[in-house]
Amino acid sequence: MVSGISNISSTSSKNIVEDEAQQLKRKIDLKTKPLGSLGRLEDLALQIGMVQNTLSPVLTKPVLVVFAADHGIALSGVSPYPQEVTHQMVKNFIADGAAINVFCRQNSIALKVVDAGVNHDFDPELLVDHSADSVSDGVRKIINAKVAYGTKNFLHESAISPEQCVEARRHAEKIVEKLYADDSNIIGFGEMGISNTSSAAIIMHKICNIPLELCVGAGAGLDKEGVAKKLSILKQAVKRVESVVESESESESEPGQLSPLAVLRLLQNFGGFEIAMIAFAMLRATEKRMIILVDGFISSASFLVAHALDKRVMDCAIFCHLSDESGHKLMVDYLGVKPLLDIGLRLGEGTAAALSYPIVAAAVNFLNQMASFESANVSGPRQ
Amino acid sequence: MVSGISNISSTSSKNIVEDEAQQLKRKIDLKTKPLGSLGRLEDLALQIGMVQNTLSPVLTKPVLVVFAADHGIALSGVSPYPQEVTHQMVKNFIADGAAINVFCRQNSIALKVVDAGVNHDFDPELLVDHSADSVSDGVRKIINAKVAYGTKNFLHESAISPEQCVEARRHAEKIVEKLYADDSNIIGFGEMGISNTSSAAIIMHKICNIPLELCVGAGAGLDKEGVAKKLSILKQAVKRVESVVESESESESEPGQLSPLAVLRLLQNFGGFEIAMIAFAMLRATEKRMIILVDGFISSASFLVAHALDKRVMDCAIFCHLSDESGHKLMVDYLGVKPLLDIGLRLGEGTAAALSYPIVAAAVNFLNQMASFESANVSGPRQ
Repeated sequence: MVSGISNISSTSSKNIVEDEAQQLKRKIDLKTKPLGSLGRLEDLALQIGMVQNTLSPVLTKPVLVVFAADHGIALSGVSPYPQEVTHQMVKNFIADGAAINVFCRQNSIALKVVDAGVNHDFDPELLVDHSADSVSDGVRKIINAKVAYGTKNFLHESAISPEQCVEARRHAEKIVEKLYADDSNIIGFGEMGISNTSSAAIIMHKICNIPLELCVGAGAGLDKEGVAKKLSILKQAVKRVESVVESESESESEPGQLSPLAVLRLLQNFGGFEIAMIAFAMLRATEKRMIILVDGFISSASFLVAHALDKRVMDCAIFCHLSDESGHKLMVDYLGVKPLLDIGLRLGEGTAAALSYPIVAAAVNFLNQMASFESANVSGPRQ
Repeated sequence: MVSGISNISSTSSKNIVEDEAQQLKRKIDLKTKPLGSLGRLEDLALQIGMVQNTLSPVLTKPVLVVFAADHGIALSGVSPYPQEVTHQMVKNFIADGAAINVFCRQNSIALKVVDAGVNHDFDPELLVDHSADSVSDGVRKIINAKVAYGTKNFLHESAISPEQCVEARRHAEKIVEKLYADDSNIIGFGEMGISNTSSAAIIMHKICNIPLELCVGAGAGLDKEGVAKKLSILKQAVKRVESVVESESESESEPGQLSPLAVLRLLQNFGGFEIAMIAFAMLRATEKRMIILVDGFISSASFLVAHALDKRVMDCAIFCHLSDESGHKLMVDYLGVKPLLDIGLRLGEGTAAALSYPIVAAAVNFLNQMASFESANVSGPRQ
């Protein structure tokens, strides 16, 4: 998972990166513990050190951003919950009543809530723009990045127009830049959007080239019949688009990989505003060398989009959990990553990112705070 | 894993326990999230509510106790590290330089270090008894519960005498009672003892009835040859005892299960003082209805002993991680439990218990702090 600064191509620069990795590994190995005995924490310490280009990385002002948006496909009955739950949950977020509120508070993570395209008019007093603080006068606010009142229903037409896609990118980048300017160097991504597993499933199907039936799951809790109906609707949607646009395969940049243009077209055809914004935010965060906490199925689908556009996003990404949503295992296998937690979560909102943060922090802390064999006068293994 | 108050036998009491579980489940299900979507956190919330007999459990003054002791078998060359590392690491614990110090500090867990039987004379100024505070004048102290300067070498004789076993129990119980009196209701168990995987492997072999070769692993980092030598030595030790005592099988209380007497004999033959004290401490913690955080291979071997003596210890136990020590998977399978973390740790000291604590706290926090569908005006699923 740790590939270092992969855009460096000259031999001498490669050597510098290798030296850096060697130095980090050496620092880790000299800590008072059996070699390798901190497992994944050692990988994380190495990765974060490489991203920050230092032997003593720090995590500053951890933040979790929940992007909320509605989906036209919700009207076709692909979720057990009605669409209004999206805006109700946004109100729950700003009232501090949701799971993500609890976990962010517990782990001292700042929480930002973004209206990326919710089908609801929130009280204007609750809205702020990207540049404002998202808690003022003790009241949590909603960052207003509304592109539209939800996407169009992709069963009948393209979900997102090219102009809307550009607008989503602009919002996402501004949000990340504000957080970066405020000294956050680690950012978790969460989402809320009734029916967004439908959007994520098709994106996964197309990018990973995995049969749709393996990408479609129970979402927020469909029964077997509900999943079958969802699959049938999504198959129709995929067919509709295939009949309209020419085959993407001819424009593939590498065998089995979509071109950047094809990825953007995919995002417009089937995306949600929250999925698009998370993808673009991940790309901007990578440019800023921020650590990215990838949550579950939706957040990973956004990662797929970002990764298809720029492989370097992998350097900064930490996959927080294996979702109980059935397709997620195949998605992480496709990416060749092993998420940190596997505790049956399938809630979204960024909950697994918030729950994983203490483990990520522990990786940085052991690297900075543990004694070495020499400093603690502890004998190493016998030769 | 949650079996409630399993010692209640009358029908009406059983109904009370079932009602309690039903009420907890109902409270969990009414939170603003898809049913079951918090996975293992929901199981933990139910378990902790049942242990504390309340719909609103709290975790107070989390504490982690590291029991350190030496093992006579270390002199037979079963570890890559020399025996003095045990006392060196105890000094590292009180100097705040070890991994467990870092993780306890990060997660606001009090850390106690116990000399259960280290082969070293610590500076008397660093020692306190059970009833004293373990940090005074800003200096961390060692709780003096030394039974002996390490166990005898079980390759040649019984590791622990019956009198020493009683003394270990007395120490363990006093330590837990002091923590309970100081308002801790959740306790993690860690250990330090060069060669203690050898002791744990034989205990596992005997209690779980699993072939010794599947119980013996690399410990602190043996190579293939080292593991083979360790296995050969442990096989000799097992044979020595079998040739001395009559077959345990005749005294089994249930088919495949050792009698309490046989378990104590096993502990005396092959145990370490830290393994014995953790087992006895778990039993006393269970009587006090404290939550028990079980760490890795050694801590789980102690749990096996405690569980063989009193099944109720399972009610209070949370298994924190699947150790990278090879036998641990079979051990947790034997117990029918699925540990919370699987991130390649094999350090001991209670590190996985300390790293898991925020996840356990999150379970209690969501139960107490999340809004319900009704209180937050969020629509439930369509009927």
